[in-house]
Order: sequence, then C-alpha cells, then structure tokens
Amino acid sequence: MERPAGAPQEPVRFETHPSRYKHWKLSFDGPVARLVMAVDDQHPLRDGYILKLNSYDLGVDIELADAVTRLRFAHPEVKAVIVSSGTDNCFCAGANIYMLGSSTHAFKVNFCKFTNETRLYLEEACDKSAQHYLAALNGVASGGGYELALACEQIALQDDGSSAVSFPETPLLAVLPGTGGLTRLVDKRKVRRDLADVFSTLAEGIRGKRAKDWGLVDDVFAKSKFDAEVKKRADALVTSTPDKQGGPGLELTDLEPSRKEDGGKLVTDYRFVRLAIDPAARVATVTVRGPDGAPAKTSAELREQGNSHWHLRAFRELDDAILDLRFNHPTIGLVIVKTEGDGDGVRAHDDALLALAGGDWLAREILLLVARVMKRLDLTAKSVFATIEPGSCFAGTLFELAIAADRSYMLASEEDGAPKIALSKMSFGPLPMSNGLTRLATRFLARPAHVEELASHAGAMGAEDALELGLVTYAPDDIDWQDDVRIAIEERASLSPDALTGMESNLRFAGPETMETKIFARLSAWQNWIFQRPNAVGERGALTMYGRPERPEFDWRRT
Amino acid sequence: MERPAGAPQEPVRFETHPSRYKHWKLSFDGPVARLVMAVDDQHPLRDGYILKLNSYDLGVDIELADAVTRLRFAHPEVKAVIVSSGTDNCFCAGANIYMLGSSTHAFKVNFCKFTNETRLYLEEACDKSAQHYLAALNGVASGGGYELALACEQIALQDDGSSAVSFPETPLLAVLPGTGGLTRLVDKRKVRRDLADVFSTLAEGIRGKRAKDWGLVDDVFAKSKFDAEVKKRADALVTSTPDKQGGPGLELTDLEPSRKEDGGKLVTDYRFVRLAIDPAARVATVTVRGPDGAPAKTSAELREQGNSHWHLRAFRELDDAILDLRFNHPTIGLVIVKTEGDGDGVRAHDDALLALAGGDWLAREILLLVARVMKRLDLTAKSVFATIEPGSCFAGTLFELAIAADRSYMLASEEDGAPKIALSKMSFGPLPMSNGLTRLATRFLARPAHVEELASHAGAMGAEDALELGLVTYAPDDIDWQDDVRIAIEERASLSPDALTGMESNLRFAGPETMETKIFARLSAWQNWIFQRPNAVGERGALTMYGRPERPEFDWRRT
Repeated sequence: MERPAGAPQEPVRFETHPSRYKHWKLSFDGPVARLVMAVDDQHPLRDGYILKLNSYDLGVDIELADAVTRLRFAHPEVKAVIVSSGTDNCFCAGANIYMLGSSTHAFKVNFCKFTNETRLYLEEACDKSAQHYLAALNGVASGGGYELALACEQIALQDDGSSAVSFPETPLLAVLPGTGGLTRLVDKRKVRRDLADVFSTLAEGIRGKRAKDWGLVDDVFAKSKFDAEVKKRADALVTSTPDKQGGPGLELTDLEPSRKEDGGKLVTDYRFVRLAIDPAARVATVTVRGPDGAPAKTSAELREQGNSHWHLRAFRELDDAILDLRFNHPTIGLVIVKTEGDGDGVRAHDDALLALAGGDWLAREILLLVARVMKRLDLTAKSVFATIEPGSCFAGTLFELAIAADRSYMLASEEDGAPKIALSKMSFGPLPMSNGLTRLATRFLARPAHVEELASHAGAMGAEDALELGLVTYAPDDIDWQDDVRIAIEERASLSPDALTGMESNLRFAGPETMETKIFARLSAWQNWIFQRPNAVGERGALTMYGRPERPEFDWRRT
Repeated sequence: MERPAGAPQEPVRFETHPSRYKHWKLSFDGPVARLVMAVDDQHPLRDGYILKLNSYDLGVDIELADAVTRLRFAHPEVKAVIVSSGTDNCFCAGANIYMLGSSTHAFKVNFCKFTNETRLYLEEACDKSAQHYLAALNGVASGGGYELALACEQIALQDDGSSAVSFPETPLLAVLPGTGGLTRLVDKRKVRRDLADVFSTLAEGIRGKRAKDWGLVDDVFAKSKFDAEVKKRADALVTSTPDKQGGPGLELTDLEPSRKEDGGKLVTDYRFVRLAIDPAARVATVTVRGPDGAPAKTSAELREQGNSHWHLRAFRELDDAILDLRFNHPTIGLVIVKTEGDGDGVRAHDDALLALAGGDWLAREILLLVARVMKRLDLTAKSVFATIEPGSCFAGTLFELAIAADRSYMLASEEDGAPKIALSKMSFGPLPMSNGLTRLATRFLARPAHVEELASHAGAMGAEDALELGLVTYAPDDIDWQDDVRIAIEERASLSPDALTGMESNLRFAGPETMETKIFARLSAWQNWIFQRPNAVGERGALTMYGRPERPEFDWRRT
C-alpha cells in the first residue's frame, strides 16, 4: 500500500462561517457584494507548504464554497458579486503546487472534483439565483486562478503591463488546467482552438488587448479606471436584475453532528441523516430520515422553520456526509443508501416546496441545493446500492436516491408493512442530473414514452409493480433477501476500486453531454491519468521537480 | 525510461489482403457476405502469447479493418454481412489478456484506439454504405467479443444453455470494456444503467431470454434454428436495401511505399505522401502532394483512375502514415503538415468528386474514406502544426489539414509565389469531425455567422486575409518566419508528452458530443487511467495476475 503521504492528518471538515474565514473577505455594499481573496499563506490546511501568491488548497476552497452558498441563502439583496484579490499584482496563482506535489493521488483527484463543483455552483448562482459574479483581475490570474475567473459571468483584466491571464500547467507542471479550465476555454467562452492551444502552452500568459481579442477576458481597463469600471458593470447588472420575492434571507447554522464509535463502526448522527462506516467491510450506510413535522405552506412558515426545514436540513446533512466519505474514508468502496419514515410525508413536503418555489426565492434555493447534493452523489467515486426495506420512505425526493444508486434492491413481501416506493413531481424535472436530464429520463433513455406514463402513477407501489415498471433492479422475497443483498454487497466490495470508478463514470451519465459532464468525464479523466504519469509525478517529473534548480526529465513516448 | 517490453519488435504494417488473412474468412453468397472469425492461435502479431478462444491482438484487428474497408470498396453488391465464429461454443473472448499484460502503456492505448476506430467504421458501413452487419453469436461473446457484436446493427444470440454475452473486464481484470463497450451499452443500446451495472460486474455474463429482455441482444434463437433465422434476417435486410448506382467495385491494391534512411531521417515515400521522421528532434514532417492529373468527371473515368484516383490514393497513404506514426514512432511528439502542388487542382478534384458523389456509390465511399482519415488525424496523440509555405496547396480538402492542426503558420509575403489558401465545398459539410460538426464550425463555435460568411469566399487568399478571417493562427513575414517556426517547433517538442495528449484531447473537440467523442474522450480516458493503476497493472494487479493461481491484491482506496 502506498503511504497516504500528504493526506490531511486530521479529518477534513467542510463547515465554516465568514467569521472564521482565514482566506477570503466577504463584504457588502447594498446589492453589490465583494469577495476578496487574501490567502493567509501561513494557514494551509495541513503542514508542509506555504500558500504563497494567493495560491489555494482545499481549505481556501471550502471557504469559497461556503461563501457562494451563504450569499445565495442569506443575501437575497445581492445581485452582483465582485471577485478580486487583496494582493495587488496577483489575483490568484491557482492551486498550490507543493500541496499537489505532496498529496496522494486520491486526495488530488477529490480536491479537483470539489473545486470543480464549487466553480459550477458559482455559475449556477449566476444562472439560477440572479447573483452575477464578476472577476476583477487586478493582477496575474494563473492556472486555477484564471479557472476561477472563467467560472464568473464577466472577466475584467487590469491593463497595467503586468496583469495577465495564463494557464502555465502544461508548460511548467506537465499537468492540465483541470478544474474546468480547458473545457471552459473552448466550450463556455468558445475560444478558437488554435488560440487556446497557444494560450495553454504559454507559461507567461497573455495581457491587455490581446487577451480581449482572443476572447480570454471580456474587458480590459487601465489601472486608473479599473475599480470604477468594474463597479459600473456591477451596477449595470444590479439595474437589470429584478428584486427577489418571498421574504428575507436565512443565515445557515452549523449542522453539529455527533460522532461516536460503536462496535467497530464509526457513526455520525445528524438531525435527519445517519452515516455509519464499517471500515472492515469497506461499506458505509447512509440513512436519510423523512420529515417529522408538517411542511411549510407559506413563505412565512418556510422562514419560521428556517434551518429546520426538512429538505434544507436533510440535504445539507447528506452533502456533508458525502464529502466526509470522499475525503476522510477513502477505502470505503460501497455506500448503502436507506431511508426511514413516512413516504406520504416526503411527498407532502415535496408538493409544498414546489408550490412555494413558484413565488419564493428561498424555496427555489432549497430546491437548487437538493439538486446540487443529488449531483454530488452522482459524481462520488463510490458504488451506491439502495436497499428498500420495511419502514423506508423512498418517495419523491428520496426516491431519487434509489435511482441515483447504481442498483436497488426492494423487498418483495405480502406482509403488512411491506416497503413501498412512490414518485412525486420531484421525479420529473426539478432535480436534473449533470447531463441535463432527470434521473428517470436517463434511466429510460430507450423509452421516453415510459417516463411520461410514469407521471400518471400517483400512488405508492409495492415491489412487484416497481420491478415491472423498471424502477428497481431486484425484488427478492423474504426468503432470498438477506443472502441476495449480503452477497451483492460482498461481491461489490471485492472488486477493483479503480475499475469500478471508471465503470460507474461511464454508466451513470448516458445521453446528452453538457459542459458539466465534459468537465467531470473528459477533462477530469485525462487529468487523473496525467496525475499518475511519471512525467508529472515521477521522481524527475515536472510536478515533483517544480521549484528545484534541475529540469524535469521526460519519457518522450506519446500515448 | 521504461523498457518498451511487449512492443512489437518489427514495425507494425497495416496493409493486408484477404488472401493473406490468418484469422478471418471472408466469403460471399450474392448480397450476403460472411465474415467468420477463426483466429489462428499460433500466429500472434509478436511472440509470447497464444490467441486462444478466438481472442484477438492488433494483427487480428488489422485484418478486420481491412475486411470492412474492402467490403465497402470492392463489393457494392453486398448488403448484409454476417459476423460469426468458426469455433462452436466460442464467438470471441475479446482482446488477448497476455498480450495486454505484456504490452507497454503506449501500445495498449494505441491498440484500443485502433480497435475503437475499426468498430466505428463498421457502424459507419451500416449507416452510410448500406452494408448491414449482423452479429451471429454462436457461442460466448465476452469482453471485446461482445463489444464487436455491439458495433453490429443486429445481435442474435444462440440459445443453447451456454452461449452468453459478458463483460468480465471489471470483475476479472480490473479494467474496463474500453473499446466502446460501456458507451455502446448505455448510449447506443440504451440499456438501463442499473442492469448495465449488474451485467458489467457479472463475469459469467447473461444468456438466453434475459439477454434479450435487458436489451443486450436483439434476438435469441434455438441452436437448431439459429443459422436459418440469422439468414432470414440478413435476407430481410437485403430486400429492404436498394441497389447501389454508379458502376462496379474497386479492388484496392497495395500502396507499396519505399522506405529509406536519409541523413538520420527515416523517409517513407508514397505516391502522393512523404513521411519524414527526425528521431533526434522528435518531429515528423508529412507532406501531401496535390493531384497531378485531371479529375474524374464520370463514373467511368472514376473507375478508370481506380487506385490512382487522387483523393482515394492520397488519403489511403495518409492513413497508413498516421498509423505508422502512432505505432512505430512513439517518441515523435510533433507532426508538421505540409502540402505541395496546385490549390486550384485540389479544388477542381474536390468539385468533381462531390458532383459524382450524388449518384455514384464509389465516389461517396471515397468521400467517407477521406472523412475517416481526417478523423484519424484529429484523434492522433501527437501535436500537429501546419506550415503554409510557397509551393503549397492548402485548398479545399487539403485545407482541412491546416484546421485539423493544433496551430498553423502561414508565410506573409509580397513576393510572387507567396502561399495562398482556399476553401471549397469540402470545408462545409462532407468531412465532419467526430463531434458531428465541420472543422470550420468547431473552430468558430462562437461565430456561426462567420462560417456562413466564409462560404462566400470562393477565391484563394493570402496570409493577411487568412489571418483576418481567423483561418490561420500566425502569419509571420519573411524576416520572422524561420525563427518563429523553429522556436515554436522546439518549444512544442520540449513539453511533456502526456500533458499535451490530455490538453489536445480537450481542446480539439469543442461543441456537441456524440457516441464517438464519448468513446474517445470519456471511456478511453478512464481506461487509460486504469491501464496505469497498480490495481490493474501492478505486480499484484488483476491484469498481471490473470491466469495465475494467486488472487490479485488491491489498494482499496477509491479515487
């Protein structure tokens, strides 16, 4: 076994709050927020490197993800967010190279995935939450720094003879601009591919007017006018963005899970979610409980429930559990998803949330958050099985967990209390996958008419109907259940983790492709490959040799 | 440097002929052809493994590619092709594991790419050449064997208690069904993803009715009726396929290039193509000459020119040169593309071919071949620069080479004989990329109106216009030309081969995705990653340990 060098010693935790930020400063000027990157180089997530030149590690990214989320939930008045740097001459140098160079493969890959997700959330805030991000590049934006800018809706570059945008990864480090960079260059900004080729091999990057001519930035302003011009663009966005209807914002509070060890298992208990890790079996069980109260039917009730609102709370918790699994439990290969509670209750909460979402921005934000967490599950490199047992509530939003799973097992029983599943309006649109389709449409790519037909199945159904309609994979009876499920779990846990990751990445996303799927499949897969290559990470590889006086040595064979 | 263990000792050659096949038998029964896989296990491409159970290596695949191409060119009367096995109980066991286990990373990746291309050519023959392939699985089709079946238009499986389809790669070898398998399962056949998940982890595969119910095959027939039922389906395809118009077929003759060493360079001379390899600089130069005679204006003239027809000959030669570069010159990182001749001549040949293609199947086949060769260039893991110099003829079809290149350099000169470029109808449709768009549409993804405007630029243009219209990357003048081009070449050749492969794979294919781009980007990238992982290819990895009594050992960390 490879030594997990560079993996954080302490478990990584993903909750934070602006009052605890070390690397970002969030301030407000009415409808314009400012998010200033001022990385404290003495506070890396783990020892061993210094975060020079506004370079980032996972700790910096966790704060950014928190800021993007909080702006959406707590600040409905904000319509434009200016992202700039607290350090003049340097916007952001990208991911810290020494951190990357000393990290395990699994950590690097998961770090890039989280960073990619945060970039997409920022774009979603522009598209769906009417919070428009402007990158104000008051210095050099290189590598991940420019990738962050690419995720913004507008990019302004200071024209001062030194500020530039650049992708030095390929020429200097023998890796890729892999947190969406290459994809956003040619697919989002549609930069001509030959210019993109030149740009991506030019370590020093491109400045001034040429950066604008090539489509790398939207505006170039002289230093003396820079702040005023950026503010002018932010103000224009404010003017063209309508006010949000529904009520005041919501300050998200800490989830405060309790963690304990219980007979060799590590158990994390949240309010609605329980995560139980069985390290010996390499299996985790995630149990999501349904709502226990009445749904919020008005904007006032929604705000009264606030952080206790079931959809909001349960999916924030699930998100935290997924990230915990990804970063702190790398040897867990299989996640069993279960639910507990009342399916009708879930569907009542679904209907109430969807009814509110038409006119209440906060209800819409909660929906978007549920959709993001479901995507996070789709994109997690662990196998997922759903087991549908008595007492479960795989209905509506929670039925999405069953079809997000690689397989599902539903107990077929004649007894009272036999499990049921049910669809709701949540199954047919509000929770799209990265490919832009619903999970049902992806599942039944060959049978679009079947998906339409399913919309008429309003009631709860037992295993036989669910199997017949293709909504579950297997429906063993009481006699077979225990053995079938046990054997399936043991078999899955015995397969190569890498082959499963590759297999699942290909089987989960049939159908159309989007910028999102391109980033996670094409770009990430190539970056993962490169992160294994001796030319990058070998003893004389470019990533290893970075900052040393000697040159890297390459094996010149092209693959 | 890794020892190139397992790389073929002798250069691999890609030309063959049915009379020289060792592994396939091609026979004809009027409009129905039979392609029988009967692998001679004692004739692997190189020593060290035995091709048991109809398993294949590159040698077997070269013959298949040849058969698929010859059926299209020489046999316009063939409307259905039945693919079956000469060995009862075993259709095909897929790629030979011992060959894979003992091959270099670069060879494995290029082998899979070639196999993927051949599968796509077979599908194109069904779609565009009205030659419909039926897989008749008279035995077990596993791994690449089932992937070959998936490429056929129809799959019939014998119901005899043992014939099955299976993907044992993940459970047995810790790699992927990577020559299109996973993608064809969920994207082409649209198999439900949970069923695809079960299927892809079940080493023994799936037989009989269940294979049909899951959509893995189209028909299941009892052994006693199998041949008759398959023939019935072939006959039905024959009946529904119209006869081809234009004239008789064409027997493709050997290209017979001459190879010599010339001052440290390896030079291959074909009729219209010259390939010059500079191993020390790790640079190859490919020069394509324009036509030297009059174009064929009638079907009779086309057949008279036959193997000498310029488009056909030049692009068959270019194809051979590309494959030579991929397999026999792995350390060559950069290909400089040049042309020589008369641009007006190229465009006259383009117009004549396109005019004929409306009514002559052979002209259409030539067009499809040119399109395939251009895709082969797009998909080659080498950097490509085009240099546009005096005496060149980057016009029409040959201008595609310049925009297929990662960059182009055009000499800007006031002198007589300054280079010109020109578009033709070939630039606007007949030669789509893998993403389904023309190279111009991909290049100008941000400016679709510009592509329409370019269609009105009928004449040849100099460097200034070409630069202005975005058709070339750089246009240095006489003073700068030599230094600019030399430095660009040296710089490119100095960069990490792996980072460049990943970068180019992301920058070359902006815009929409197709099954083809999914196979080459998503699936191949993941497979390449897995081909590097210790869990597959390490000392105790599954691919290494295959066939040994001990079990593989896995590092359980998920990535």
